[in-house]
Amino acid sequence: METEFYRFLASRLPRLPAGLIGPGDDAAAWQAQGTWVVATDTVAQDVDFRLPEATLEQVGHKALAVNLSDLAAMGAKAFGCLVSLVLPDQGALELAQRVQQGVLELARQHRLHVLGGDVTTWPGKLVVTVTVLGQVPGGGRPWLRSGARPGDRLLVSGPLGGSILGRHLHPPVRLQKALELRKQVQVHAAIDISDGLVLDLWRMCQASGVGATVELDQVPVHPDAHRLARGAPEQGSPLHHALYDGEDFELLVALPPEEAERLDSLAASEPERRWYPLGTVTAEPKLLGRHADGRLEALPIRGYEH
Amino acid sequence: METEFYRFLASRLPRLPAGLIGPGDDAAAWQAQGTWVVATDTVAQDVDFRLPEATLEQVGHKALAVNLSDLAAMGAKAFGCLVSLVLPDQGALELAQRVQQGVLELARQHRLHVLGGDVTTWPGKLVVTVTVLGQVPGGGRPWLRSGARPGDRLLVSGPLGGSILGRHLHPPVRLQKALELRKQVQVHAAIDISDGLVLDLWRMCQASGVGATVELDQVPVHPDAHRLARGAPEQGSPLHHALYDGEDFELLVALPPEEAERLDSLAASEPERRWYPLGTVTAEPKLLGRHADGRLEALPIRGYEH
Repeated sequence: METEFYRFLASRLPRLPAGLIGPGDDAAAWQAQGTWVVATDTVAQDVDFRLPEATLEQVGHKALAVNLSDLAAMGAKAFGCLVSLVLPDQGALELAQRVQQGVLELARQHRLHVLGGDVTTWPGKLVVTVTVLGQVPGGGRPWLRSGARPGDRLLVSGPLGGSILGRHLHPPVRLQKALELRKQVQVHAAIDISDGLVLDLWRMCQASGVGATVELDQVPVHPDAHRLARGAPEQGSPLHHALYDGEDFELLVALPPEEAERLDSLAASEPERRWYPLGTVTAEPKLLGRHADGRLEALPIRGYEH
Repeated sequence: METEFYRFLASRLPRLPAGLIGPGDDAAAWQAQGTWVVATDTVAQDVDFRLPEATLEQVGHKALAVNLSDLAAMGAKAFGCLVSLVLPDQGALELAQRVQQGVLELARQHRLHVLGGDVTTWPGKLVVTVTVLGQVPGGGRPWLRSGARPGDRLLVSGPLGGSILGRHLHPPVRLQKALELRKQVQVHAAIDISDGLVLDLWRMCQASGVGATVELDQVPVHPDAHRLARGAPEQGSPLHHALYDGEDFELLVALPPEEAERLDSLAASEPERRWYPLGTVTAEPKLLGRHADGRLEALPIRGYEH
């Protein structure tokens, strides 16, 4: 099936620019200059998706999307991806084609090259590992988790919580939004929220040696978090879902207050371009939530651990 | 277990040079210039290895080695790797540490950076996906499968066949040998022999639009192929094993006859540096074997298909 699959793939790939060697050789090759970034992430059946709840195309989409989210968190432009498929023996070729279709569609949207990959068949379940390559634009530096400084403002790229109602199958890709932000303001630190706002904010704080205060009445709560809380109030409030649910794949960034103000004055009214203020970086390495009445409470640090 | 595993990994990693961002952020980052190559390969339990026949350290070694073999086949220098682990729930942390130990040891030998990775636990079997990055030295071009021309000499980096007797658990890494060859002569085409000499030679021929004649009495047959044939004569001759067994991970290269002669005059007596002549590239797109008495026969094209 390997041969057929590569034939299928070759027939679906756009022509590569000169100097770029794509799939079909022992490795892909390209001309590089400047700062490059690379990340890899795996999605596994019954862990990161269930079939047939997710379609195979969605699995491919998700496998690439969660990786692109890592590039976005570095403030990088997507360049290419490699896709490794471990496929159940039964119907492996069709599985491979449909997963790859999801990858190809998202790759096309973000203009990244499919550079290669690997296929294995086995009696086990479906595993998709994607590696992405990206480039930091314009001689800039990658955004790290470790650059947040006391006084920085925290912003998030979209409303949070309740992704389990369906968004987890089709994670947003904030590449474009990150690149626009890079053009507009100076960013001190960034991370993508994959395991819950609190846990990922805490990871940024730990990497930066700081703490944070979250304005609980400002956290943008996704309508899905409200729906989830209405349907199962015993599982927590909408805010609780926004703070702790995994798989939002929004970006969390820290930037100097004057930069945050400048961004605010550029205020985009379209939700697609809007950044939501969330809180402030503090010197004391603690995670606090501030209620509307000013009351502070320590935020328990937990989230999704793989 | 994710947190513990990354702590373990961080404690084992050598200090990274300035400007290189390693594991622990959303992505790794490095400064690039010139021609870069990237490849990915997966090894899965009960497909590419069996436990406990292979130790977990060997699994890590193999997962990286098969990828480094792809870099060698491009004539590239190893730069870094990313390791994605899908681990059985039971004892996942120890599994992860032991597999990573095998990766780290081989990475240390070849001076490549461990740049990042991913861990997932699940009720299934062990899957290890490695992605490697490499750089083509000195402004050169990567070796492709497609550059072989009629009249080129075919050479192989080591004796073939019988890897199943143990070498498949500890594949050779011909990176250094490939880089030496690059310094000495001009290479037209290269491929690593992972699925059997005949099948991989045929892949090179197809990519190049050529054929080849293999001198059957010159094929370097590994002692393991002899042992295998003695133990189970019904499974074929030693030569048959050398032609068709998978997982040799030696390199096959095509180079102009005058370059082959020049290499021969530099003749290394140590087996570690020696290249074995094997045959000639032909214009007619056929794969032939020539016996010692001059008799030609078509070589059936088969090998290991994933």
